Amino acid sequence: MTAQILDGRAVSAAILERVQREVAEFVGSHGRVPVLATVLVGDDPASHTYVRMKASRCAKVGMRSQRIELDETISTETLVNKIRELSDDPEVDGILLQHPVPGHIDERAAFEAIAPSKDVDGVTRTSFATMAFDEGGFRSATPGGIMALLDAYDVPLSGKHAVVVGRSPILGKPVGMLLLTRDATVTYCHSRTVGLADLVAQADVLVAAVGRPELIRGEWIKPGAVVVDAGYAGNKGDVEYAAAAERASLITPVPGGVGPMTIATLLAQTIKAAREHESAGHLGT
Amino acid sequence: MTAQILDGRAVSAAILERVQREVAEFVGSHGRVPVLATVLVGDDPASHTYVRMKASRCAKVGMRSQRIELDETISTETLVNKIRELSDDPEVDGILLQHPVPGHIDERAAFEAIAPSKDVDGVTRTSFATMAFDEGGFRSATPGGIMALLDAYDVPLSGKHAVVVGRSPILGKPVGMLLLTRDATVTYCHSRTVGLADLVAQADVLVAAVGRPELIRGEWIKPGAVVVDAGYAGNKGDVEYAAAAERASLITPVPGGVGPMTIATLLAQTIKAAREHESAGHLGT
Repeated sequence: MTAQILDGRAVSAAILERVQREVAEFVGSHGRVPVLATVLVGDDPASHTYVRMKASRCAKVGMRSQRIELDETISTETLVNKIRELSDDPEVDGILLQHPVPGHIDERAAFEAIAPSKDVDGVTRTSFATMAFDEGGFRSATPGGIMALLDAYDVPLSGKHAVVVGRSPILGKPVGMLLLTRDATVTYCHSRTVGLADLVAQADVLVAAVGRPELIRGEWIKPGAVVVDAGYAGNKGDVEYAAAAERASLITPVPGGVGPMTIATLLAQTIKAAREHESAGHLGT
Repeated sequence: MTAQILDGRAVSAAILERVQREVAEFVGSHGRVPVLATVLVGDDPASHTYVRMKASRCAKVGMRSQRIELDETISTETLVNKIRELSDDPEVDGILLQHPVPGHIDERAAFEAIAPSKDVDGVTRTSFATMAFDEGGFRSATPGGIMALLDAYDVPLSGKHAVVVGRSPILGKPVGMLLLTRDATVTYCHSRTVGLADLVAQADVLVAAVGRPELIRGEWIKPGAVVVDAGYAGNKGDVEYAAAAERASLITPVPGGVGPMTIATLLAQTIKAAREHESAGHLGT
């Protein structure tokens, strides 16, 4: 294997250390602990695990998580109202709605109930547009984590061809927009793409984000490419790892690549939200 | 020349006839005329011409345009307040802020003062995200017009490689997102792109949207490609027309291609907004 590892565990640990220091400063200045509200609907075991991990990381960096667990059968309206309450609650700095919600719920309506100033997971329409237009604001957590990981390794993006495989609203679409703001030429591929292998072979930077194990064959990878694998299903990524690592210059392991960066981004954005709430005087105290 | 013309004049005329019928029905049902407010800042002659053309087309289809002309020197705050007034005015159905505004004004702040329900020119963050997420809502006028023109000629998009040259917030970025929702594989190219000729040569559908006359050489065009030229500067498009028309299967003339589709989309969205205001009971009459 020739590729160097894009070590999401190490980079995220460094980010979380910085967040921990920032939280301590925040508590010293403002006399309160930043709060991330996590909203979980239903009993999906994987979702429960994710929310537990996020709560545990919150505690480690000195923030408080407020866990809201709602029954599988609740209506869109009840969920929207609950999230609006959190949006209006001066004690809440950030809101995370664990994705996916049960099929009968209008997920977009639920996302849009999150106040943009508390959208630390970057799921609202406003956050998507501010990412696309390079206007600051919060990033979708996984795309934001991917950009931070690339930057930690000084991966050049300007003028490079970035190929994104996947086009979901909180992963594929925003990561492509973030790469475009950094002057990459960006190609979006997906399930209807004809000639995927030839397009992947053009990628200087490949972001795989579909959740189909080993869809992307190692032999497709351009020699020297940077490979970011955000897929995770059946304990495997979207990229055939061993063969890809023979050709890539840098590659994320799965797990230990993108995953830890997602949580680090979420928490970094939560302390940012808390500071912005204080400076906007939203808390009125 | 082998290419057939994508005749924006003919297609837009058909759309405007439909809009005219819809306006007549609307007036019959609701006893009032739909109103498009146009906001123009400063003395740019081209912008004045565009606004006059839009007002004249409004009149032709039976809608009223309310023209607001503001001094070159006004502040962002004054402009934002004026647009908010229009957003709150129950007599206004749609709002168009003529682009570009003078350099000292925060154009994004002005765009965001437009209520999403009146954003018939599709410039707000909300409209951008609803285009990207295929959620209905209003389209940026030129991208919406391009899609309507492609559909009028039954151009297949699913699985095709669409290359967009340009990445502005109201043209390049949204048209790429609209093509992606139609299952095209989409590549965004721009001023920092390396190897533009090779990327253009892959396009089954090419959308040129940069405003650099004849940047795209005819010899780059893939034989049989569909070429949409949304550029217009110095009386020329972004594509070297005669040479491109030798290779393309369908091509927009400049002028007479994309331009008329933009106005048609704007007016089609204004009558749509008027109907939605009535059914939402926003007018309270």
